[in-house]
Amino acid sequence: MRISELAEVTGVPVHTLKFYLREGVLPPGAATSRTRADYGEAHVERVRLVRALVEHGGVSIGDIRSIVEALDSPPPSRHELLGVAHRALPGVTAGAEVSAEVADLLESLGWTTCTDGPLAAGLTAAVAAARAAGVELAPAELRRYAEAMRAAAEVDVEVALRATSAADALRTVVLGTVMVDPVLLALRRIAQEGVSAERG
Amino acid sequence: MRISELAEVTGVPVHTLKFYLREGVLPPGAATSRTRADYGEAHVERVRLVRALVEHGGVSIGDIRSIVEALDSPPPSRHELLGVAHRALPGVTAGAEVSAEVADLLESLGWTTCTDGPLAAGLTAAVAAARAAGVELAPAELRRYAEAMRAAAEVDVEVALRATSAADALRTVVLGTVMVDPVLLALRRIAQEGVSAERG
Repeated sequence: MRISELAEVTGVPVHTLKFYLREGVLPPGAATSRTRADYGEAHVERVRLVRALVEHGGVSIGDIRSIVEALDSPPPSRHELLGVAHRALPGVTAGAEVSAEVADLLESLGWTTCTDGPLAAGLTAAVAAARAAGVELAPAELRRYAEAMRAAAEVDVEVALRATSAADALRTVVLGTVMVDPVLLALRRIAQEGVSAERG
Repeated sequence: MRISELAEVTGVPVHTLKFYLREGVLPPGAATSRTRADYGEAHVERVRLVRALVEHGGVSIGDIRSIVEALDSPPPSRHELLGVAHRALPGVTAGAEVSAEVADLLESLGWTTCTDGPLAAGLTAAVAAARAAGVELAPAELRRYAEAMRAAAEVDVEVALRATSAADALRTVVLGTVMVDPVLLALRRIAQEGVSAERG
């Protein structure tokens, strides 16, 4: 299809598609003449991914470039793949130090692979910000929140394991993380009302 | 304490405190002269709440005004109180229609009090956006995510029930929702790596 048709199918204007091409987040189409190129289904999927990351994930074009570079040459192991996805997503690497409390928590949950990485530092920063704002967040509560998110992550990992290739798995993790975050937060609020009514 | 001391204690500049006073999100201090007023612990707590909502919750001053109005005249029942908190928080009332799938899900979870409200519409919109971006999100997966968030919400409700007054419960819910959201999302990413390593 021509770029105008790619715009129609994806709902993304031609000038935005040209911006994606210039920024290297959308691969060039197959040249059919000096000024025309042909785009396929892979382009449609890539445009949807970029759009979702920009609109809902608040991911910068620079970060999207590292995500699509990883998509185009996926890392060999699934664990590295998660690392690539997580490092590229915003808001995760905020903070530099890992508190002893967070390290102990992750250790006790058996999550020993990430006790000293950027994700643990991001959690340390989020916990500190909540407490500074006046949320008590006792260690036992933090642990129960972690157990709840383990149940959510089990779904995430099962979905990623169904992927047919490493690139597909990476796309699934990145998109699933960014786009399911708002679903989880909406569910949390509904569950608060549901649980409150049950005890009511 | 004087406004300069309130600024020092909270780390919020005097000109920002004056803006909060003008916008009605910070109640005036007790006048001690024509140009001076005295502020107390309640002001310190209020400034921290407003600051957290602005910086981490992305809540507008208008929405903060409705939150603090609710704080100053809390609704009689805990269920109404959650409704006040949720309506004031951003990103929840996006969307207008509730899908049959979401209504059935909430019904089957026993959360019948919110099957037709703005929270259910917000969930419908979040699910639709995820699927439009290419996330499969099968109904069985959505249900498992809901069960995970029920476990998180049980912690939320227990914390709110410890509050000594309706105003304190409202403050706890608003602050706990906004400030614990990033903690949960950080935990989700860590749990993805942890669960993936367990299965790896």
